[in-house]
Amino acid sequence: MAVTTASVASRLRALLPEGRVLDEPTSLVPYAYDASFWSLRARRMPDAVVVPESADDVVRVVRFAAETGTPVVARGAGTGQTGGAVPARGGIVISFARMRRVHEIDRTNLQCVAEPGIVYADLNATLGGHGLFFPPDPGSGRACTIGGMVANNASGPHAVKWGTTSAYVLGAEVVLADGSVIVSGGARSKALKSSSGIDLTKLFVGSEGTLGILTRLRLRVQPRPAARAVVLAAYDDLDHTVGTLDDLFAAGILPATAELLDRTAVEALMKWKPDLGLPSGEAVLLVEIEGTRTSVSASVREVEGIVGRRATVTQLAEEEAAVQRLWAARGGLAAATALVFPGKHRIFAGEDLAVPISEIPRTIRRAREIGRETGVSVIFYGHFGDGNVHSGIVIDPEDPDEVRRADELADRLHRLAIEVGGTVTGEHGTGAVRAQYMRAEHGPALDVMRRMKKVLDPQGILNPGKLDLEG
Amino acid sequence: MAVTTASVASRLRALLPEGRVLDEPTSLVPYAYDASFWSLRARRMPDAVVVPESADDVVRVVRFAAETGTPVVARGAGTGQTGGAVPARGGIVISFARMRRVHEIDRTNLQCVAEPGIVYADLNATLGGHGLFFPPDPGSGRACTIGGMVANNASGPHAVKWGTTSAYVLGAEVVLADGSVIVSGGARSKALKSSSGIDLTKLFVGSEGTLGILTRLRLRVQPRPAARAVVLAAYDDLDHTVGTLDDLFAAGILPATAELLDRTAVEALMKWKPDLGLPSGEAVLLVEIEGTRTSVSASVREVEGIVGRRATVTQLAEEEAAVQRLWAARGGLAAATALVFPGKHRIFAGEDLAVPISEIPRTIRRAREIGRETGVSVIFYGHFGDGNVHSGIVIDPEDPDEVRRADELADRLHRLAIEVGGTVTGEHGTGAVRAQYMRAEHGPALDVMRRMKKVLDPQGILNPGKLDLEG
Repeated sequence: MAVTTASVASRLRALLPEGRVLDEPTSLVPYAYDASFWSLRARRMPDAVVVPESADDVVRVVRFAAETGTPVVARGAGTGQTGGAVPARGGIVISFARMRRVHEIDRTNLQCVAEPGIVYADLNATLGGHGLFFPPDPGSGRACTIGGMVANNASGPHAVKWGTTSAYVLGAEVVLADGSVIVSGGARSKALKSSSGIDLTKLFVGSEGTLGILTRLRLRVQPRPAARAVVLAAYDDLDHTVGTLDDLFAAGILPATAELLDRTAVEALMKWKPDLGLPSGEAVLLVEIEGTRTSVSASVREVEGIVGRRATVTQLAEEEAAVQRLWAARGGLAAATALVFPGKHRIFAGEDLAVPISEIPRTIRRAREIGRETGVSVIFYGHFGDGNVHSGIVIDPEDPDEVRRADELADRLHRLAIEVGGTVTGEHGTGAVRAQYMRAEHGPALDVMRRMKKVLDPQGILNPGKLDLEG
Repeated sequence: MAVTTASVASRLRALLPEGRVLDEPTSLVPYAYDASFWSLRARRMPDAVVVPESADDVVRVVRFAAETGTPVVARGAGTGQTGGAVPARGGIVISFARMRRVHEIDRTNLQCVAEPGIVYADLNATLGGHGLFFPPDPGSGRACTIGGMVANNASGPHAVKWGTTSAYVLGAEVVLADGSVIVSGGARSKALKSSSGIDLTKLFVGSEGTLGILTRLRLRVQPRPAARAVVLAAYDDLDHTVGTLDDLFAAGILPATAELLDRTAVEALMKWKPDLGLPSGEAVLLVEIEGTRTSVSASVREVEGIVGRRATVTQLAEEEAAVQRLWAARGGLAAATALVFPGKHRIFAGEDLAVPISEIPRTIRRAREIGRETGVSVIFYGHFGDGNVHSGIVIDPEDPDEVRRADELADRLHRLAIEVGGTVTGEHGTGAVRAQYMRAEHGPALDVMRRMKKVLDPQGILNPGKLDLEG
C-alpha cells in the first residue's frame, strides 16, 4: 500500500491526538540536520514529523509506517555528529522532545525509569537531588537526550572509569518494526543484574534506531562521589603520556578520567581563557580521581607523584570550583577553536577515532601529517584513558576546495583508525557518515548485523540508510 | 543427511587430528553432568565429545553438525548449575579443556586475548603478574572457565562495583551455526570502546552457546587495586541492611562488595570455623572497599561510621590476611552447610534469585516461610549490593519425598523472584533448568529472543533445549 509524500501527514493526523504532527515545510527544516557536516550538504527532509507524548502514539506511527513501507527515524536533540537522526530516505521523523518524563528515581535500588526524550543534564540534575548520577558524560550533555545516548552507546571523559552508556541500560520498552511492543531486561523487573535469557537490551543499545524504537528506559544510576580532584600534567613528548597512564595502572590506579589536550588544543584554550593557567607542552593530561573527601585528599598526591615521573610540570586542582573551571574550559574547546582560526568553522567529520592507548601518539602524529598533506587545520584532544581521539577539523565551509580536502582528511583519519587497530567511532556512532567503513572494520561480522536487521525489520523501514545494514 | 549415533564419533575422527574425539561410554559419562541437581536426574549423555585445540577444529565439528543436524554443546569446566553445558538432546559436546592459551596480555591497553577454556583463577594469576585482574569473581572461580563465564554472563560479589562479565568482553571470535567464523567488536580492533555498528559481542555474551560458539575472547581487564578492607556488621533486623546500603549510597559510596549472610549462613560458618569470630545477628553484612593504601585507610572508618548507624556491632578487617580469611570462609559456605545438616547434600536448584535490593528482606522472609511450608532446609546468603540472593537448599537426594518437596521449593522461589520484581537468575544462567520461567519473566520479549535464535541457528543445532528458544 504505497502512500504519497503529501498524504503522510494527513493520514498520521487521523491516527493521532491533535497537535502531534508537523508538516509545514519551514517546521520540517530543522529535522533535516544534526551536527554532522554531512547533513548540511545532504539536506534530507522528512515528509512529516511526529512529536509523540506516549508509547501508544509511537506504536500508531510505526504501525502506519509498516503498513505503508514508510521510513521512520527516531530523534532526540539532534546533537549527533553522524546523521544518525536525519531521515536519509525521507519519511517520518519521531521527535522525542515531549517524551521526557522521569517516571521513577529509586536510590535504594540504584535505578531510574525515564522516557528517552529527557535531556542528559536535566536527568542528572534530578538525580543529583537524590545523591545519584548517570555516569556517561558526553560533551553535548547540556542538550543531548538520554534516548540518543542509548541509541549511540554514547560516553565521554568519565568512561575511563565508569564505562559507556551500554553498562547503564538495565531494560527498555521497545516498539518493534511491526508496531508490537516488548520490554527487554524482564517485563516487570527491577533487578540490577540478570543472566536470564538472551540480552536483548544490549542489542538495542547502540543500534541507532535501526532495530526498534525506544520509548522507556530503565537505567542503572550510581551514588555520586562526594569529592574529586584533578592532576594536570604537561609533557614534552606525546609518548610519555602513555607511560604515565601505564604507571598509574601498574600502581593499581584507574583514574576517573584521563583527558588529553594536544599542543594545538592547549593553545586554543589559553587564547580563549588565559587565566586558566594551563601548563604548556607537547601535550597536557588532566587526570581526575574521585571518592570520598578523605580518600581523594589522601590519594591525590600519590597520583601526582606517579604522574610527575614523566611530566615536565604537574599542578593540582583540589577545590571543586577549580575542577569545575577546568572541565568547563575543556567543554568549551569548540568555541575556543573558532578564536584560533577566525573566519573558519569546526566541522564534525572523522572526529571520533578510538585507538589502542599505546597507539595514540603515533595516531596523532600521523593525523597531523595528514592534516598538513591535505592542508586542513586540525586540533586534537580526547578521552586519552580509553583511546578516544577527537579531531577538531576547522575549515571555511564556503570554500569548495577546502571542503574537498576536509573530506579527504576525514576519510584518511577513519582509515588510519582501522589501520592502527582502532575503531572509526569511539562514542559518536556510525549513522550515515561512517556506514562506508563498516565492512573494513567488521569484516564478515557485518553480515550478521545485517541478518539481525533483516529479521527485526524485514521491510527496512527503521532508520534506513544507516550503519550499512541494507547490504 | 541423518547420521546414526554410533557413527558420530567415527565420522568426527575422520575430520579431526588424532586424539580429539572421545566416545568410550565411561569417558562420556562426566559430560552428562554439571553442578545442577537437574543433570543428576536427567542423565543426558552425549554421543561424542570433542576436545579441540584450535578454532579450526571447532569449525570442522560445527560444519559436521550442520550437515548432519547433530546438536553441538560447548562446555567449559562443567561447574554450571543449570544444565547449560549438558547435552539435553544428545549430540556432540565440545570441551574447551585444551583451548586455554593466553595469547596476549597488554597492560597499557587494559586488555588480554585468551581462549575460552582458560580457568578463571589461572587467568587471574597470570594477570596478577602484570598488576591486572579480571573483575567478575564467581564462586566457582578456582575451576570455572572464562568461556563459561562469558556464556552465562557470570559475576560474583564484586559485581556491585565492577559489574558483570558482559562489561569486560570487548570482542570475540565466534563460530556460527553454519561453521563460518566472525570476529565481533572489530575484526582487528584493540579499541577499549566503540560505537561502531551493532554490538554483536553483547548478543553472544550470556547466550549460553545457543547462538554461536566462542573460540577466542578479547577481554577488558583492570588495574588491580593495591589495598582493600572489609567492614563487618551485624544486624538484629534484615530491613536495617537495606538502610545501611542506602546510607552508603547517600554518602556517595559504592562499595566493592556488600555480601549478606543470613542468620543460618552465619551459624553454618561459625560451626565450621569458630575462630572466624563473625558477629552474630539476624544478618551480617561484609562491606568491602578498595583503592590505594592511603585511600582505603583514610575512608574505611568513614564507611564503618555509616554502617554503624544501623548495625548492632561492627568490626574491621584491614590486614590483607584477615580479609583473605573472611573471603575464604565465605567461599566455603557450601562445605559449612554440610556440617550443619549432616547426611544431607546441598543441591543447586532455585539458587540464584536476583531481586531489587529493597525487596531482599521480604524475599528472604517469604523464602524462609516457603522453606518451612515445604519442610526443606535452606540457608540464605548472597551479593546483597546487587540484589542477588543465593538459596542453599539442603536435602537427602535419596529421599524421593524430600526431592519432590525441594522441587516445589525451587519452583516457588523462582516464581517469588518474578513476583517481587526480580529475575530467576542473577548470574548462574538459564540453561535447561530455568527455561520454563522465560515466558513469565520476559513476556513477548521471549519471541524476539526466539527470532534471534532462528536467524542465527535455523536448524536448532546449537545447545538445543535451553533458554526456551525453540518455542
